[in-house]
Amino acid sequence: MKKYAFGVDVGGTTCKIGLFETAGPLLEKWEIKTDVSDEGEHVLDDVAAALKTKMAERNISADDLQGIGLGTPGAVDQEGYVRSSLNIGWTCKQADKELSEKMGGILVKGINDANAAALGEMWQGGCKGYKNAIMLTLGTGLGCGIIIDGKILVGAHGGAGEVGYLIVNPQEEEKCECGPKGCIEQYCCATGLVRLANRALVKPHESSYLDQVDQVTAKDVFDAYKAEDLLAKKIVEEFATLMAIGLAGLSCIADPEIYVIGGGVSKAGQPLLDVIQKKYKEYTEEFYHDTKFALAQLGNDAGIYGCVQLILE
Amino acid sequence: MKKYAFGVDVGGTTCKIGLFETAGPLLEKWEIKTDVSDEGEHVLDDVAAALKTKMAERNISADDLQGIGLGTPGAVDQEGYVRSSLNIGWTCKQADKELSEKMGGILVKGINDANAAALGEMWQGGCKGYKNAIMLTLGTGLGCGIIIDGKILVGAHGGAGEVGYLIVNPQEEEKCECGPKGCIEQYCCATGLVRLANRALVKPHESSYLDQVDQVTAKDVFDAYKAEDLLAKKIVEEFATLMAIGLAGLSCIADPEIYVIGGGVSKAGQPLLDVIQKKYKEYTEEFYHDTKFALAQLGNDAGIYGCVQLILE
Repeated sequence: MKKYAFGVDVGGTTCKIGLFETAGPLLEKWEIKTDVSDEGEHVLDDVAAALKTKMAERNISADDLQGIGLGTPGAVDQEGYVRSSLNIGWTCKQADKELSEKMGGILVKGINDANAAALGEMWQGGCKGYKNAIMLTLGTGLGCGIIIDGKILVGAHGGAGEVGYLIVNPQEEEKCECGPKGCIEQYCCATGLVRLANRALVKPHESSYLDQVDQVTAKDVFDAYKAEDLLAKKIVEEFATLMAIGLAGLSCIADPEIYVIGGGVSKAGQPLLDVIQKKYKEYTEEFYHDTKFALAQLGNDAGIYGCVQLILE
Repeated sequence: MKKYAFGVDVGGTTCKIGLFETAGPLLEKWEIKTDVSDEGEHVLDDVAAALKTKMAERNISADDLQGIGLGTPGAVDQEGYVRSSLNIGWTCKQADKELSEKMGGILVKGINDANAAALGEMWQGGCKGYKNAIMLTLGTGLGCGIIIDGKILVGAHGGAGEVGYLIVNPQEEEKCECGPKGCIEQYCCATGLVRLANRALVKPHESSYLDQVDQVTAKDVFDAYKAEDLLAKKIVEEFATLMAIGLAGLSCIADPEIYVIGGGVSKAGQPLLDVIQKKYKEYTEEFYHDTKFALAQLGNDAGIYGCVQLILE
């Protein structure tokens, strides 16, 4: 094993970059702007330039580098093609191969960003030491990475773990952006929680702290929940119920040892885990009840950690 | 690779046994009665006696035998413990190790019966040549085996692929035997289809061939469906919709190349696949639409094939 590796987590606004020792420590992290102009065609040039600058600055040669892990939004199939990475502008791009060419042949491995976050949490975060884990990132949307025997489940089209599509409420009448109705991503993320809150607020309801808030956020809902606001309790329990229906599906299909919950919503902390776990037990067979729940620990750095873990495999 | 292998598929009524050449051909198959008395404690003795008799009869020595694959109902965990195999009477039994001891140390590998069927269909049946496949057995209940990169997905508690628990109708009021409500097994199997039919028959409905049948079976429903009976069409479409919601979950979690449908209900043939596939496309993102659908080909022999395939891994 060589001494260094880079993790690059490409997002729609910035690319996060981390320089790691392969033995574990994160030496340095920084961000560059993601240039999404011209259908994202400058992104990999900008990344390559940033990596080369850092290598020169630290006197790291190509021979010292184990490789580069490259996380991107969108599905990454088994040949490394990134498909439908729309917020960068890529429709189908073999990003790993292209970056490797720009870096003079250094090994590059590509991975979906939610999958990278899961690997990162397995390596040095909330599911460290577990080989069968599922990470759910409850941010603006819902991201998921499924780890089986220490490796990411990719699937035939790179579509495994795209759990946002899981249908948890077939009776839903509002269409999801993805097409079907009642997908878990319509409810179980920051945007989804706000949707549930707004629906509850326009119905007749008990007086609530949330009535006084101008534009309710996920944080408002959980703050009110922790203050034992009755309406917030109903909203969070509905959220947790829909989450539990999805988790019941994940358990009976993939049966992980542990669920790790990350993303902005997870800042609600232990009370979030508690309510999800309570509802999970109502919707699953006893057999699955000892599955563990933990909070993610690496925050926005999970992706760069996971990209490096991928290189160490 | 040695010349022979046995596949043993233990059921609640009979044990199916197959003698195979490891190169592929099934040489001979037969059944023995499953003695479920005394909490099933005689089952493995009876199996061992049957195998030894056959070896003597055919002059096969232990040295000619690659091993024995042992399929059983209930979850089989990663240490080979068979858990909750209730229709045999076993609550927790390391059946592979016990049978190996009774057979003088010959290699025995244990597997859940639905998983064995999936491996069998991958080896010589409906999903031959595919490495990422999901088999659904629509019999009295719903069985499932998930194959990832050519291997069965077992999960942390042996509970992966126990897809009968997948919740596809959270609004259901009738409890499932497993505890929760609205599990796919309440609808998507022979018993479930009859439940849907009986519910439709007690509601006001158009005149139907099914009105004249005393106790409706799954076959009656599909026969009427093929004869363009309007009520049967409604019943089958409801069945297919619930199935599609489950398949949408399987695709976004595990993303297989192919679904293989077996069990008694699959005798309805291509019209069954067609209606399921049509609904599947309504409930999934376009991304997953080229996933293939096929009928199982090995019938009740799938289990013994899969048990042998396990030995060849």
